[in-house]
Amino acid sequence: MVKVAQRYLEVDPWKLVEKDYHESRHLVSESLFSLSNEYMGVRGFFEEGSLSKSLIGTYFNGIYEVPKNINKSHYKGITEKQHYMVNSGNIFYFKLIIGNELFVFDKDNISNFERMLDFKTGESIRSYQIKDWVRISFKRMLDLTQTELSYQVVTIEPITYFGEVKVIFGLDFNTLHWNQMGRWKISHKENQMILARTTTNQQVFNTFDLESNIAFNKVYEYKNKLSSVSTSFNLNHKVIFEKRIVSLIHKEGHGKLAEFKQKAETLLKEASYQKSLESNKVFYEDFWLKNDITIEGDPLNQQGIRFCLFQLLNTYHGVSQTNNIGAKGLTGEAYSGHAFWDSETYCLPFYLFTNLSAAKNLLMFRYNTLPHARLRAKELDCIGACYPIATLNGNEAADLWQHASLQFQPTTAVSYAIWHYVKNTKDEDFLIHYGFEMLVEIARFLSSRGQYSQDGKKFGYYGVMGPDEFQMMVNHNAYTNLLGQKSMAYFIEVLETYKDHPYIKEVIKKTNLKDEEIDLMKDQIEKMFIPYDSKTKIYEQHLGFHDLPHIDMHQIAVTDFPLYSHWSYDRIYRNDLIKQPDVLMFMFLYNQSFDLETKKANYDYYEPKTIHESSLSPSIHSIFASEIGYEKQALDFFGFASRLDIDDYNRNTNEGLHMTSIAAAWVNIVYGFGGLRSDGKYLKLAPVLPKLWKSYRFNINYFGSLISVRVEKETLSLTLDKDLNEPVLIYDTVYLLKKGEIRIKHHVGD
Amino acid sequence: MVKVAQRYLEVDPWKLVEKDYHESRHLVSESLFSLSNEYMGVRGFFEEGSLSKSLIGTYFNGIYEVPKNINKSHYKGITEKQHYMVNSGNIFYFKLIIGNELFVFDKDNISNFERMLDFKTGESIRSYQIKDWVRISFKRMLDLTQTELSYQVVTIEPITYFGEVKVIFGLDFNTLHWNQMGRWKISHKENQMILARTTTNQQVFNTFDLESNIAFNKVYEYKNKLSSVSTSFNLNHKVIFEKRIVSLIHKEGHGKLAEFKQKAETLLKEASYQKSLESNKVFYEDFWLKNDITIEGDPLNQQGIRFCLFQLLNTYHGVSQTNNIGAKGLTGEAYSGHAFWDSETYCLPFYLFTNLSAAKNLLMFRYNTLPHARLRAKELDCIGACYPIATLNGNEAADLWQHASLQFQPTTAVSYAIWHYVKNTKDEDFLIHYGFEMLVEIARFLSSRGQYSQDGKKFGYYGVMGPDEFQMMVNHNAYTNLLGQKSMAYFIEVLETYKDHPYIKEVIKKTNLKDEEIDLMKDQIEKMFIPYDSKTKIYEQHLGFHDLPHIDMHQIAVTDFPLYSHWSYDRIYRNDLIKQPDVLMFMFLYNQSFDLETKKANYDYYEPKTIHESSLSPSIHSIFASEIGYEKQALDFFGFASRLDIDDYNRNTNEGLHMTSIAAAWVNIVYGFGGLRSDGKYLKLAPVLPKLWKSYRFNINYFGSLISVRVEKETLSLTLDKDLNEPVLIYDTVYLLKKGEIRIKHHVGD
Repeated sequence: MVKVAQRYLEVDPWKLVEKDYHESRHLVSESLFSLSNEYMGVRGFFEEGSLSKSLIGTYFNGIYEVPKNINKSHYKGITEKQHYMVNSGNIFYFKLIIGNELFVFDKDNISNFERMLDFKTGESIRSYQIKDWVRISFKRMLDLTQTELSYQVVTIEPITYFGEVKVIFGLDFNTLHWNQMGRWKISHKENQMILARTTTNQQVFNTFDLESNIAFNKVYEYKNKLSSVSTSFNLNHKVIFEKRIVSLIHKEGHGKLAEFKQKAETLLKEASYQKSLESNKVFYEDFWLKNDITIEGDPLNQQGIRFCLFQLLNTYHGVSQTNNIGAKGLTGEAYSGHAFWDSETYCLPFYLFTNLSAAKNLLMFRYNTLPHARLRAKELDCIGACYPIATLNGNEAADLWQHASLQFQPTTAVSYAIWHYVKNTKDEDFLIHYGFEMLVEIARFLSSRGQYSQDGKKFGYYGVMGPDEFQMMVNHNAYTNLLGQKSMAYFIEVLETYKDHPYIKEVIKKTNLKDEEIDLMKDQIEKMFIPYDSKTKIYEQHLGFHDLPHIDMHQIAVTDFPLYSHWSYDRIYRNDLIKQPDVLMFMFLYNQSFDLETKKANYDYYEPKTIHESSLSPSIHSIFASEIGYEKQALDFFGFASRLDIDDYNRNTNEGLHMTSIAAAWVNIVYGFGGLRSDGKYLKLAPVLPKLWKSYRFNINYFGSLISVRVEKETLSLTLDKDLNEPVLIYDTVYLLKKGEIRIKHHVGD
Repeated sequence: MVKVAQRYLEVDPWKLVEKDYHESRHLVSESLFSLSNEYMGVRGFFEEGSLSKSLIGTYFNGIYEVPKNINKSHYKGITEKQHYMVNSGNIFYFKLIIGNELFVFDKDNISNFERMLDFKTGESIRSYQIKDWVRISFKRMLDLTQTELSYQVVTIEPITYFGEVKVIFGLDFNTLHWNQMGRWKISHKENQMILARTTTNQQVFNTFDLESNIAFNKVYEYKNKLSSVSTSFNLNHKVIFEKRIVSLIHKEGHGKLAEFKQKAETLLKEASYQKSLESNKVFYEDFWLKNDITIEGDPLNQQGIRFCLFQLLNTYHGVSQTNNIGAKGLTGEAYSGHAFWDSETYCLPFYLFTNLSAAKNLLMFRYNTLPHARLRAKELDCIGACYPIATLNGNEAADLWQHASLQFQPTTAVSYAIWHYVKNTKDEDFLIHYGFEMLVEIARFLSSRGQYSQDGKKFGYYGVMGPDEFQMMVNHNAYTNLLGQKSMAYFIEVLETYKDHPYIKEVIKKTNLKDEEIDLMKDQIEKMFIPYDSKTKIYEQHLGFHDLPHIDMHQIAVTDFPLYSHWSYDRIYRNDLIKQPDVLMFMFLYNQSFDLETKKANYDYYEPKTIHESSLSPSIHSIFASEIGYEKQALDFFGFASRLDIDDYNRNTNEGLHMTSIAAAWVNIVYGFGGLRSDGKYLKLAPVLPKLWKSYRFNINYFGSLISVRVEKETLSLTLDKDLNEPVLIYDTVYLLKKGEIRIKHHVGD
């Protein structure tokens, strides 16, 4: 794999630390030092202004805009419902005037720069010295439980400069979206307060209080969407300003000014940095207690995996069913804030075994957007429901038709996720009241989108793009066909199991489900064509893949990567290079349906063809490498996954963090080294210990029991906080685990 | 074929005649009554204004705009050089005020409407009565030889109204492009004169004289890009205004005002409607003498084919090497005025056998735009030259990447056209000095874009769209592979024949052509894979086509056509329906390389799968039907081709005339019924007479001899104006034809 680390931060188990300013990494640092709390996110930009290119980003989950010029097509089914998470007002607006001079961060005028992000508190602290004049520090924090509260603390301490200083704090709605002009309309403004509206008619309300250790006068100003307060003082000793900000949103735009003001007042009455810090500490302490992963003997991966867990928690922990997990979380504007099928395949496992209500809410997001998916299926001349490849609000937002109209992974992923969730929770109530209706419509879509071959013997999907986005418009993609088959079969299984349940009957009536549809699906399931060679045990990614022109990826110049940016668009699609796992992806999802020999054959065949241009690719490969026994590869791939952003392997962390591959890092360690399997009859654990590591530990929450798994040189120990009534397979033995610790000798293979 | 005529015009051998106003066909009539003279074109809009939706269209060949918001892509090779033929100023601006009332055409206020377009003069005359007040007529004409001159004659004759009438004549640069705002900048204006500029920095200059049979005062006005002159008079008797308009353009934008004025003055000094009418008569007389096609016993097709010839002549007769033939000619804005590979495949044969210098100029257009094609090849990560799928100025203008990046028909068509032209003219000078350089770069492109299959045994094109645009991204499209093979082979043949010619040596040096390139091409030619089943004699359109899901087109609801407008975009691409000939297309181009049995097998296989959504499709099918002996089908298809626009078979003549399928109608009759074959050792003629026809006659010009071919019930007669030194194959006998007439007995088959 042609990926090289660009390391510049200190290695620390509980923090990100930047020592000295790294100018060339300015945007990368902005992403890495982002703060979020699911409700909102703020990039780690320099509020005082800097000479470097910056993306002053403040985002609210579910607040979006539509492009000014929607690319209208005169072809049917090409989506016109694009939308993107919009950059909101800068709540950390700040200016510093020393004497008469407006200060702007410039590496030549500062020294002793240091920045830190604390995984135990969610605090970000940045400090440096300006010439020999003063020392300044900026603290920031978002409250993780009272999510509408955020803080900015600025401390100025004189060294040789004892004179006039002016500071301006504000709310600034002039921030521009990456590629688009900001389009905020200000509905109301007053001192230290702005109520703004998107053109999609959503609302954002911001206000703040400003406290200090000195008495100070306030001069209020409102100009051009900027509401500010300034004050001047003589700098004699350390001066601290604490800005306590309230951010309120109304996604439907029905918020009333008086209500916003009332709520803000109540919040501010109780707010202080110190209080929120204490509350955050408790929040994170609980999180780490239940979810920490420790790796002894590998400080790089230790820091990497903690950073992943920290960011994943911040991005989503299931506060609202209208939230989802954007590919870049709330840390940047690439991928427009959209959630992809990553939510169901890479993120759901993490929540399923750490935060059940969050897992359910992710599924409820799909249930609530079923009407949009139904509409989309119609646009595609199909029936049932087709889930979007990219979305914030349930509508298809992908602006490339070849992705929006040809990729059905999101649809089958919802079905898979229902199956996966129900299998590991036995949540029948969810299955009956929410899952089933989705399953009906998904199966219908898959039945209507599929086609029979000319001779009527093969059923499958023509003109699709599978998970591997380097093969655009192919027939009989093994992944799509298999997942289509599994989805329809699961639907029929659920139908047959629960057909007498009154709510199931109601859904059947409401959706007008006919027996003929089921008969047709049964025939389609039977004839579903999965290209496979029983001699080599290799699945063909799609019909014809084996005969595509071969490219040896080691012959490609390093400067050609990423290929998307350096190769002619069409060139990417006409050879046997693949971007990310496709055959291996379905083997990951239905791992226990395939024997080791088959996994090895397919890994050996596909891995050397895989460019890993998707950030989600390495972790899946690490899991298989670990299972097959390719220890070095397993660890190498894991390193990419856990430190993808910290070491900027893909050279695009400047655009935001790879939030879903951060989830995949958890999946990587738990499914990869831990050998967790959640797709079979029993939950299975089969940990291995990489030679490089002294030990590692991870937790999973299964049917109410918190299982702490510690893997050491010779033994595996499991500690439960209560008895578990579900059997668990450890290596090849079924256990009924009880509260307390159990130690088992290592064991590799089945 | 699901196509139904919508006939509303009179059947007349030399005219289009509309009796009574057909309101619902307003836009269709605007297209049909268009005038053009290659230099410019004007749609048949009502200059007095009407209540119906209208496209006031005035176009100059080669005057274009670029879209305001070019769809920039961050992917390489996706063209950003879009441009479109822009709607220019309305030179026929006119307003009529009767009493105090501005007259606007309204079917409820008019009677005795009649309109006529004369194929022998290029005059369009329209007249009607306004209430019982007055009779009015509008004549229009473009001068076919002095192409900068055009005329508008308005005649007003009192019936019961004898009062004040005001008329306004003007030049109006407020006309809007179909989907875009007009963006003309006015550089200069004075009385009855405007000089305007596009944002692409091209110039259009318009001025006019106004004459009348009455003395009249002029009131000049300029307002908002409209320069007008008005006059009021008492209507006592018939009043005639003759507006003589000069239109000058400068494609590079270097025209000086004084020069424009000078040239206009010179032109206007000599201009009059009557003079230009006489000149047009001579021009058309000569044309019809040399190129008329007569069909005895079939008045519908007689009118149809004459309309085709008339419009084709008007659109292009080779005045300038910077002109080409837009898919809609100069009669509308669909296809943005772009020329396609139709120019080389459908239009070139017409010019090759009727107007040699025009044929050569079409090829010179490609020679002159070789630099653009070289650049395009680079954008696609290839070497050599890749010709655009759609263009006005040589750059790729197609805004759908899937066409621009995947279709190589334009490139192979240029190579084919050079071969076809040289074969039928022996123009070695052209081949050496212009053709060869194109052949080098085309062969290079085809060599670099092709790929070897995984086993190295098959060479061909992966990820392409062949002529049939219903199969988007396929591998080993038989057409593309075969044409690629033929193009490289022809290049090597020319190279080996002329390698010692000093200019060829110069080109080899200039293009840095290496022996290794030739060796590689030879291997590629040898391994070029053409999917073919020797048992059935059927060529597979592309690898895998035979196994695509089948759709019986007779089961598709008529309201679903055209499929592009009614089916989800992706749905079009995943079945065995085809839009237009693909396998049959290469069999048309290299007709004599295939035996009759093979042609029949492939026709019988592909025709029932063909939707004919391309207007170019019926004529090719007619030619094969005729050759195979399917007489009824041959005639049916010809009917679509010859009357495609008059009867609006495709329901989109409102957008402009299908200019290249108009060319295909000529090809249809001459190659189809006439059995002309120009791809073999000898030129071949093998006419058949459809039973429905009494006789037909067409002319071809071959090596300086005008051969008039008349086909009657039992005999075929050829009349030559001079001796022909080239042998001609008639049916299966080689003739050396002499000046005078020769009569031959009919003969069907080889």
